[in-house]
Amino acid sequence: MSVAETLEAIDIPDAAKRLGDLETPCLVLDADRMERNIARLRERLAPLNVTLRPHLKTAKSVEIAQRVMASPQGPATVSTLKEAEFFAAAGVRDIIYAVGIAPWKLAKVIALRRQGVDLAVVLDTVEQAQAVAAASREAGDPIPALIEIDCDGHRAGVLPGDEDRLVAIGKALVEGAQLRGVLTHAGGSYAARGEEELRRRAEEERSSVVEAATILRNAGLPCPAVSVGSTPTAHHAVDLTGVTEVRAGVFVFFDLVMAGVGICKIEDIALSVLATVIGHQREKGWILVDAGWMAMSQDRGTAKQAVNQGYGIVCDSSGQPYDDLILADANQEHGIIMVRPGTDASLPELKIGDRVRILPNHACATGAQHRSYHVVHSASDIVHGEWQRFGGW
Amino acid sequence: MSVAETLEAIDIPDAAKRLGDLETPCLVLDADRMERNIARLRERLAPLNVTLRPHLKTAKSVEIAQRVMASPQGPATVSTLKEAEFFAAAGVRDIIYAVGIAPWKLAKVIALRRQGVDLAVVLDTVEQAQAVAAASREAGDPIPALIEIDCDGHRAGVLPGDEDRLVAIGKALVEGAQLRGVLTHAGGSYAARGEEELRRRAEEERSSVVEAATILRNAGLPCPAVSVGSTPTAHHAVDLTGVTEVRAGVFVFFDLVMAGVGICKIEDIALSVLATVIGHQREKGWILVDAGWMAMSQDRGTAKQAVNQGYGIVCDSSGQPYDDLILADANQEHGIIMVRPGTDASLPELKIGDRVRILPNHACATGAQHRSYHVVHSASDIVHGEWQRFGGW
Repeated sequence: MSVAETLEAIDIPDAAKRLGDLETPCLVLDADRMERNIARLRERLAPLNVTLRPHLKTAKSVEIAQRVMASPQGPATVSTLKEAEFFAAAGVRDIIYAVGIAPWKLAKVIALRRQGVDLAVVLDTVEQAQAVAAASREAGDPIPALIEIDCDGHRAGVLPGDEDRLVAIGKALVEGAQLRGVLTHAGGSYAARGEEELRRRAEEERSSVVEAATILRNAGLPCPAVSVGSTPTAHHAVDLTGVTEVRAGVFVFFDLVMAGVGICKIEDIALSVLATVIGHQREKGWILVDAGWMAMSQDRGTAKQAVNQGYGIVCDSSGQPYDDLILADANQEHGIIMVRPGTDASLPELKIGDRVRILPNHACATGAQHRSYHVVHSASDIVHGEWQRFGGW
Repeated sequence: MSVAETLEAIDIPDAAKRLGDLETPCLVLDADRMERNIARLRERLAPLNVTLRPHLKTAKSVEIAQRVMASPQGPATVSTLKEAEFFAAAGVRDIIYAVGIAPWKLAKVIALRRQGVDLAVVLDTVEQAQAVAAASREAGDPIPALIEIDCDGHRAGVLPGDEDRLVAIGKALVEGAQLRGVLTHAGGSYAARGEEELRRRAEEERSSVVEAATILRNAGLPCPAVSVGSTPTAHHAVDLTGVTEVRAGVFVFFDLVMAGVGICKIEDIALSVLATVIGHQREKGWILVDAGWMAMSQDRGTAKQAVNQGYGIVCDSSGQPYDDLILADANQEHGIIMVRPGTDASLPELKIGDRVRILPNHACATGAQHRSYHVVHSASDIVHGEWQRFGGW
C-alpha cells in the first residue's frame, strides 16, 4: 500500500457539526488564529528578503502544509523521511530533511529524488559527506547536502569558524554530491528572554552561517543556500543579510512555551485539546478530565519558565482561558485541573460531562499525540472539517 | 471501515530479518524478557487466590494481550473506549474501562455490550451513577459499574469510609444498572521506596476496597468484584484477603521508573528504542542519535528518583547497557548521548551509522510513540515478527 493510500485508508469519521458533538479527548485547531500566525511571520520576513521554508514537523498535515508553504510545491523542511514521503505524495517538490543523515537512509532519499522531489540532506562530518558522495555516484544523482553549523552550542553542527572541517566536508561532498549550502538552528533561543537577547540570538544565528558560507566560497566551493531558523529568531531578526531562507515550525500554532518566551500572546495559540469533565475531588480543589498526558504529551517546557503552566492552561469550550486555571497534573488518561498555586482564583463550576479546552505547552509534542485536527473558526463552535495528521517514521 | 479492517490496512512492511536491517528509530521488544515478566507476576499472584486482569493500555497490541491475559477472552482492563473496541474486535469479552465514565460515552459502551462484550465502567459520583442507570434502562441492558475508591489521595475515587456517598452511588446504580463492585489504583505506590513501604502501600490498597465493599454489603447492596491494581503493589502484596482481582499493566515490559522503585532489574526491561548514530560533538562528549523525544516520549519519570536516567539508558545493539551512558537530552528527532554526570565512565567508540538500543523511563509513554513492536529473543538479533500497536481515542 502506498503512503497516499495508507493516508486515505485511515479511518476518520465524518466531521461532527459542533464541538459539543466531538469525542474527547481530541485536538481542536482554530483556523483563524493559525491564518493570522502565518500571515504575521510572512509579513515580518517580506522586507528581509528571505524565503520562508516552513518546518512541517509541527503540523504533519497536508492541509496545513498547503496553507503555510509559499506554493503547493514548497519549499518545506521536514524532520523525518516519513514526512518527506507524505508531503512528496501530496505534491511538495522542494524539501530539506533537516536531521543529520545516516548513510542507510540515503536509499530512501534517492528513491524520493527519482520521483522528482528536490530532497536535500543535512550533515556535519566528512564521513557523512563521503557516504553521500558515494551514494550519489552510485545512483548517478548528485544528492544536495547542506552543512549544519553550530551557532549556539545547542545540538549538532560544525563551529562556524572551523575552516578545516568545513572545507574538508565541502570537498568530500563535491566528489559526486552537491554542496547546497549551510544551515543552522538557534535552538538556544528557546531559553532566551527579552527583545534584546532575542535579537542578539537572531544575529548570532545569521552571522554564524554567513561566516561559514564565506569560508566555503573563499575555498572555491559553492554555497547557494544559507539557511537559518527557529520561531523565536525568525520573529526577532532585524537584518538577514547573506541569509537566503528562514525555517520555522511552531509559529503556525504557537504554544505556551512560545508565549513564555514572549513570541506570542496566549490568545494567539491556535491549538487546544478538547476534554470532558469526568469527576471532582472537591476537598482538594480538583476537577478531573479525560485528557491526561496521552492527549497533552508530557512536555513540561513551561516548568523552566517564569510561569509554570503545568500541562496546560484550561479554557472554556469557546477557548477563553479561565483565570489561573491549569492542568496541574496528569496520568495516562486522567488530567487534574487546579487553580494555579499561590493565586486566589476560584475553581469554575464545571459539571460532569462539561467540556473544556486546554492550551498546550508545546504544539509539536501535543499534536503528535493525535491523528487529526478538528477545525473551528474563533468565534464559533461549528467544526468545519477534520484534517488528518500522520506520525511515526 | 471497521476497526479490524483499519488495523489490517495499516501499512506495515514485512519483518526484516535482523535488527541491523530495521529503519530507525523503532521499538524493539525482547519477547523472552516479556514472557519472564508475565510469568513472574502470575506465579506471584497464584497463591494469593486472585484473578489477574492485565491493563492493556501499556501494550495496546493484540498479540501481547493474548500473551498476558489468562484466556483469549480476558479478563482485561483498558484506559480508553478505543482500546475496548480494538480488543473486543480481537475476541476479548471481559473488559473494565477503568477511567471515570462521561455520560456521552455510554452509547459506545452499550454498542460494545450488544456485541457480546461484558464491558464494565467506573465512576465515583451519584451523578454518573444516575446517568449509567438511565442509559441502562433506556437500552434495556443493566450496564455493570464499579465504584472507584481513593486509597491514597492520588487521583479519583470515593474515600473508603465515606459510607453516605458509597451507599448513595450504589443505590443510584441499582435503579437499572448493575453494581459490579469496587475498584482502586494505588498510584501513590510509584513514589514508594523499599520493601516495607511497598508492602504497606499494597495493604492500604487492599484494605481500602475491602472496607468499601463491606459498607456496600452491609447496606444490602451487591459487591461481587473487589479490584486493586498497580505494578508496584501487585509485586508486593502479601495478603489479598477480600480482593477478587488484581490489575497491572507495566509489569509486562517494566521500565526504568519501575527499576528505580525497585520492582525489577534493568535486565528485566523488555522494551527498547533502536536508534542510529548520526553525529558527534566530541569536544562536549556528545553522541547524537536519531531517537529524540518523539521516539522516547518526554517522560522524565526517573528525574524524581535517586538515579536520573535522562531520557533513557543506552545499550549496545544486543541490549547490553554501556557503563553510565544515558540519553541525556532530546529534541524532537535528535537524542544526545552522554556519560552520566559525576561518573568517570568513558564514551564508547560509536561511528556514524552504528546502532544503539535505549531503555525507556516509562514503557506506556514510549510505546505510545510507535506503531509496532519488532520482536526479538534475548540472545539473538533476528527479528521474529512485527506486532502492530494502535493509539488514539
